[in-house]
Amino acid sequence: MGMTRKTFGTVTDKNLALFTDLYELTMMQGYIETGHNPTATFSLFYRDLPPNRGYVVTAGLEQVVQCLETVSFGDEALAFLTEFDFSEEFLSYLEQFEFSGDVRALPEGTVSFPNEPLLEVTAPILEAQLFETVLINQIGFQSLIATKAARMRDTVNEHGDDQSLVDFGSRRAHGTDAGMKAARAAYIGGFTGTSNVAAGHEFDIPVFGTMAHSWVQSFPTEREAFEAFVDVYGEESVLLVDTYDTINGAQTAMDVAEARGTDISGVRLDSGDLVELSREVAEIVGEAGIFISSGIDEYEIQDFLTNGGIATGFGPGTALVTSDDAPSLDAVYKLVAVERDGELQPSMKLSTGKVTYPGQKSVRRVEDDGQFERDVLALHDEDAPGDEQLVDVIIDGSLVYAPPSLDESRDRTCRQFQKLPQETRRLQNPVEYPVHVSDGLQSQTASVRDELSARYLDAR
Amino acid sequence: MGMTRKTFGTVTDKNLALFTDLYELTMMQGYIETGHNPTATFSLFYRDLPPNRGYVVTAGLEQVVQCLETVSFGDEALAFLTEFDFSEEFLSYLEQFEFSGDVRALPEGTVSFPNEPLLEVTAPILEAQLFETVLINQIGFQSLIATKAARMRDTVNEHGDDQSLVDFGSRRAHGTDAGMKAARAAYIGGFTGTSNVAAGHEFDIPVFGTMAHSWVQSFPTEREAFEAFVDVYGEESVLLVDTYDTINGAQTAMDVAEARGTDISGVRLDSGDLVELSREVAEIVGEAGIFISSGIDEYEIQDFLTNGGIATGFGPGTALVTSDDAPSLDAVYKLVAVERDGELQPSMKLSTGKVTYPGQKSVRRVEDDGQFERDVLALHDEDAPGDEQLVDVIIDGSLVYAPPSLDESRDRTCRQFQKLPQETRRLQNPVEYPVHVSDGLQSQTASVRDELSARYLDAR
Repeated sequence: MGMTRKTFGTVTDKNLALFTDLYELTMMQGYIETGHNPTATFSLFYRDLPPNRGYVVTAGLEQVVQCLETVSFGDEALAFLTEFDFSEEFLSYLEQFEFSGDVRALPEGTVSFPNEPLLEVTAPILEAQLFETVLINQIGFQSLIATKAARMRDTVNEHGDDQSLVDFGSRRAHGTDAGMKAARAAYIGGFTGTSNVAAGHEFDIPVFGTMAHSWVQSFPTEREAFEAFVDVYGEESVLLVDTYDTINGAQTAMDVAEARGTDISGVRLDSGDLVELSREVAEIVGEAGIFISSGIDEYEIQDFLTNGGIATGFGPGTALVTSDDAPSLDAVYKLVAVERDGELQPSMKLSTGKVTYPGQKSVRRVEDDGQFERDVLALHDEDAPGDEQLVDVIIDGSLVYAPPSLDESRDRTCRQFQKLPQETRRLQNPVEYPVHVSDGLQSQTASVRDELSARYLDAR
Repeated sequence: MGMTRKTFGTVTDKNLALFTDLYELTMMQGYIETGHNPTATFSLFYRDLPPNRGYVVTAGLEQVVQCLETVSFGDEALAFLTEFDFSEEFLSYLEQFEFSGDVRALPEGTVSFPNEPLLEVTAPILEAQLFETVLINQIGFQSLIATKAARMRDTVNEHGDDQSLVDFGSRRAHGTDAGMKAARAAYIGGFTGTSNVAAGHEFDIPVFGTMAHSWVQSFPTEREAFEAFVDVYGEESVLLVDTYDTINGAQTAMDVAEARGTDISGVRLDSGDLVELSREVAEIVGEAGIFISSGIDEYEIQDFLTNGGIATGFGPGTALVTSDDAPSLDAVYKLVAVERDGELQPSMKLSTGKVTYPGQKSVRRVEDDGQFERDVLALHDEDAPGDEQLVDVIIDGSLVYAPPSLDESRDRTCRQFQKLPQETRRLQNPVEYPVHVSDGLQSQTASVRDELSARYLDAR
């Protein structure tokens, strides 16, 4: 029985343009048919921090840039769209689609706060509308994971000894793309590397690995399994010692190393009372490393370190790649300004609990004595204190920004954390970092709201 | 400034083979170097149900089959691996890698329970080892989402009127692949369709869409926005009415329809007190549909329906595609049998809290009066009651299974739910469905455990 070869992933060049909600295309055709294509500004931001988060570390901008600069509707995509009753005129428009607008954004590795634009797109509304779905997807997920990773890195740095942190989560990530991007975002958040070989290949991230229980079980005895591994890998060996009994396993590991006349790099513990076991194992393995896996997260790393556990590295998996205590960021992409009579006018909606600050923004950060003191969310052209955090990325469709290397973005996260108040970095119940809304933005918000309220609410 | 064109996705044919943890490759090279390549059976299962789940609906088998049947190490992958100090012999092995083993699995759309194999792979350990990471990834995520979707479908069918359920979650999914696969898995779980155009293209799922707030805001008034949309889409129009004021918006929608002399398909509510608003809106819109979005999940759908909310359809997003109340399934891929002296021998580990039943299994389902009464987890060749649920998928590397269409898998889920006890389907605190461990499996487990305990635990 045969099977057609298909792509995996599963979104590739051939249909990234289609990674959009149908309503984006429906609206785009509507804009064409009604001859209504004003310039518009969309702001990508989140209204609320996820639970127990005092900040969000941004990530995903490089993928957004790739998307905006390269998206195109190929023959296969266009053929599929003919099934939807779209007009010839609209399909011709899509065939020559190119992004011609402007993008400003926070660089990857920037700490951000609610209502601050992570990204602003200004373009003919027909173009800007298409990217809503894919831009939220790209920025939202990577920022979620970079944040989770940064919490772990911050915990290790505060309570530990700068231990290594390696992403072990690919198997539990939400699909293959998530496995890859989680590895990337975790690195930006401060991780040392990943176990995922494809992510190492794609993003040039250091790749690490040890052995699984299956190696040990596949040999008649644990001793023979360790001997075979040490014979191949010598002093690079990291032996998994908990298949049958952790203490017994650690002793066997060292016996084998001694018998073979080699050091080993370390042992891995993957189950049981990790604090107690790590202390017992440390007595046995001496200078060799102790690597801790077993479903750990930042809370457990903190407990482990503050309770005297001994480790040279940690391999968080599921908790990291799913951000399990907060598996989504409520990022949105909202129209905040639209051209009327030849000028961009601020716009907002009044939907209950979902109010948006209107207009193009500026995100200013005020430092005091080398520490972040507060942010100011202001109008784009307003005179306000602090340093502008948004940078120009694309102007008139042309890239004007050199995306930094992953190492540069990772360094940026690290530097930002040195300035972020400790109480905002707490793992639980962090203190809200002050974000002031400027006078200009407050008064613009009030005036747009009043006008809309008068028209729609008082009319009832 | 230029930018290299890259793939999105980001895992494509060129590096799916690399979507693996480094330790799989390290072990594989170790097996080669030590001349140790016994036949082994790996079982993919989960030990515990996610919180508030009484079952897991399986999904993802088709992607697993594609993976096993087509994976290969191309020049680019092999070139990357030379960076890791792998031997010439191992790289030559990878260059000609093909899967030659056997696979048995639960068909997509089957309800499953803890410790039951969703999939069993029997192959030379060198081959079976490679796929650990990608198989857990493919089956785990889609099963998680199919389960979440089935909970929503079951809730709607029990408390409602078989309303439509459309996946609106692509923007909040964990990357692009997750957006695609969530749409697929949700359809298997009983959804009506998706908003994701690429998923419609890739998997032939019905695609739906309405309009966004940006359409409404881009026109000077809501009325003009509705007029423009109705002029283009006529009776197919679904108008979003909560941009400024839901009741006012619903009235405006109907005024516009009347003025234009057309019916409209419906209105969408996306904020506010949905029960109360839907009842008021129903009075206004008459025969037109009411579509509910706004961050809903199965619990809110249940509350909405039992409290008298009126709707013709729901568009869950974030909660669906992230399975937000349970964002991971603890699926594992464990060695359960290994060849010794020419025969497959049962194997297990003793790691604290992570015990695995040894040996190849059979999953039997016993029905009584058309209802599922209990499952029996038995040895593969054991005489046990009930119908075998695992089917042969691949034998000696050849596909012997015609993957069903998505509609067939969706029908299977639906038929299984008609037989699944109501108390096991509860949204909260479901009653545990009985899975009996057969006499043969119990005695085999005890005997392997005793032997290992004597060797490793008593030796301390």
